[in-house]
Amino acid sequence: MSLAATASEALAKGRARDDVERDAAFLAAVTELQALTKSDLAAVNDEILARMHSPVAMIPELAGHLISAGGKRLRPILTLASAKLFDYAGQDHVKLAAAVELIHGATLLHDDVVDGSALRRGASTANIIWGNKESVLVGDFIFARAFELMVEARDLRVLKALSHASGVIAEGEVLQLTTQKNLAAKFETYIEVVKAKTAALFAAATEVGGLISERSPEEEKAIRAFGLNFGIAYQLIDDVLDYDGFEASLGKTLGDDFREGKMTAPVVFAVARAREDEKSFWRRTIADGDINDGDFENACMLMQRDGAIDDTIACARDYAERALDALRRAPDNKYAEALSNLVITSIARAS
Amino acid sequence: MSLAATASEALAKGRARDDVERDAAFLAAVTELQALTKSDLAAVNDEILARMHSPVAMIPELAGHLISAGGKRLRPILTLASAKLFDYAGQDHVKLAAAVELIHGATLLHDDVVDGSALRRGASTANIIWGNKESVLVGDFIFARAFELMVEARDLRVLKALSHASGVIAEGEVLQLTTQKNLAAKFETYIEVVKAKTAALFAAATEVGGLISERSPEEEKAIRAFGLNFGIAYQLIDDVLDYDGFEASLGKTLGDDFREGKMTAPVVFAVARAREDEKSFWRRTIADGDINDGDFENACMLMQRDGAIDDTIACARDYAERALDALRRAPDNKYAEALSNLVITSIARAS
Repeated sequence: MSLAATASEALAKGRARDDVERDAAFLAAVTELQALTKSDLAAVNDEILARMHSPVAMIPELAGHLISAGGKRLRPILTLASAKLFDYAGQDHVKLAAAVELIHGATLLHDDVVDGSALRRGASTANIIWGNKESVLVGDFIFARAFELMVEARDLRVLKALSHASGVIAEGEVLQLTTQKNLAAKFETYIEVVKAKTAALFAAATEVGGLISERSPEEEKAIRAFGLNFGIAYQLIDDVLDYDGFEASLGKTLGDDFREGKMTAPVVFAVARAREDEKSFWRRTIADGDINDGDFENACMLMQRDGAIDDTIACARDYAERALDALRRAPDNKYAEALSNLVITSIARAS
Repeated sequence: MSLAATASEALAKGRARDDVERDAAFLAAVTELQALTKSDLAAVNDEILARMHSPVAMIPELAGHLISAGGKRLRPILTLASAKLFDYAGQDHVKLAAAVELIHGATLLHDDVVDGSALRRGASTANIIWGNKESVLVGDFIFARAFELMVEARDLRVLKALSHASGVIAEGEVLQLTTQKNLAAKFETYIEVVKAKTAALFAAATEVGGLISERSPEEEKAIRAFGLNFGIAYQLIDDVLDYDGFEASLGKTLGDDFREGKMTAPVVFAVARAREDEKSFWRRTIADGDINDGDFENACMLMQRDGAIDDTIACARDYAERALDALRRAPDNKYAEALSNLVITSIARAS
């Protein structure tokens, strides 16, 4: 048994590291998976670049800026590793992993337009360099190319899973938009947003690896549950890091969610626990978007004081446990071990 | 033989009508096709409404505003009529026609954001009522739902045709954006834009009717060529009407293309034929977007004087002839007759 005796034991072990080690541990886990899927991942990158070709020069330029430059390739790695976990011997996992990354890329382009973001992965966003209109249209192009790619794999169950996930992602983005600046937003709604905008694609990415491997319904369900719960846990930690992370390793500006009035878990918890005289602070900053020097630091202080950060991390650990439990219902091999390690270290990014 | 003896004879006949009759003739041709596909079209509308359902209330609200309210349903009618033209007896044409209309709807939402349009079909656009962010995200949702729908028809050739068309549409929109305000844009580039942003979906809409009917490759090719050439002709006339139409029957503001600096055929022709002292007029208005009272009227006058309008219409008639020629390679029945009439009257909207 290569996995730790229990999921919570493994998560506790990950937590024991110090600040610098934590980030390095997560990156090492990603690197390990990249190494395990090395030649497939190179084929995925080639496929992505080839699909961005267009006689309209702006398309490969803009898409290349987003997609070819950097990114951990977390989602396509999930597809590749899930297929390999099940001993998949074909070649469709490469096309599908590329399609998953392209769906992700298209949503990033549109997200950055919607959020007005200026920085991603340490570089200027496409909407800043090329413009909002261009980002919307190239996002549509990338999304369409993702569909063309997945159609080539000729598997209707896979097509159903990925097209459904794409709709759910957009639904989650709209739901997030309608809860923005709304101090009454509930934790349950936040989890719905996270499930839809992030976890649905993680779930589809891993599920697809199971579907093409033609395993038992139980194993297909297990690998999907792994992806779904890991996705939720991952996003919860991301939302913590927006208040409690290191700007250099995040590759984006700290406090973006705060400035955009996003009702992520740390804010939802902090608002619920605010003292009567502090409520006006959250109203002014989150609801009214009137943010001055020192407000972000004050928000972080209140979140720490009232346990909003700790409770969000605890919630992430809970979903991570579910992910690890699901993974135990799949074969136990080096891919399972690497995926397990990915979950554990991703949670330990915060804590 | 129910079609006129030659395509150009039929087009000349359509041209002979006066102003008021022209618009009424086109609407009558649409109504005729709506009547021929009546129960299928009702099923398409039900399918569309059902697919816009979401627990996120804003989605059916915004999508409903765009999709359920009005629109001629030209593209889904093309799918339905093409299938019936080939005696298709199944039910997949309804799902696919709905998917075609949803792809169109998603692109309209994004177009209106990109163009900053305020009016469509005589009503305020979704970006004006709900906002740009909302329109981008709901557009993504509608696009994803279109894919879910077409996957249900379980036909990989259809999926390939429609996903490819979706990519080409986005490519055309980007190309249009890069030629905007560029006085050096060529007529060939304009035709590329029209083929991609409009005709690709017309072509896929009719092709799909052929594919599901499992006809000979020649007939599949013919019905696709019909849609493609009709699409080009239709867009050319639309671009004429932006300078030479009736605002009331267009349902949008006259001169939108002019104000956006779009290099449509009338502008491309007019700029090429401008006298030396008129070139600064086109530079100021189209390239620099500095538009004053009377400029639009002056642009229209120059277009009439130099034959820019007439030549665009002549070009549309040429593509319409190709569409009618292609249609002659398909069965000759009441659907062919109605489609032929649609082409003829759509060209006669201008002239």
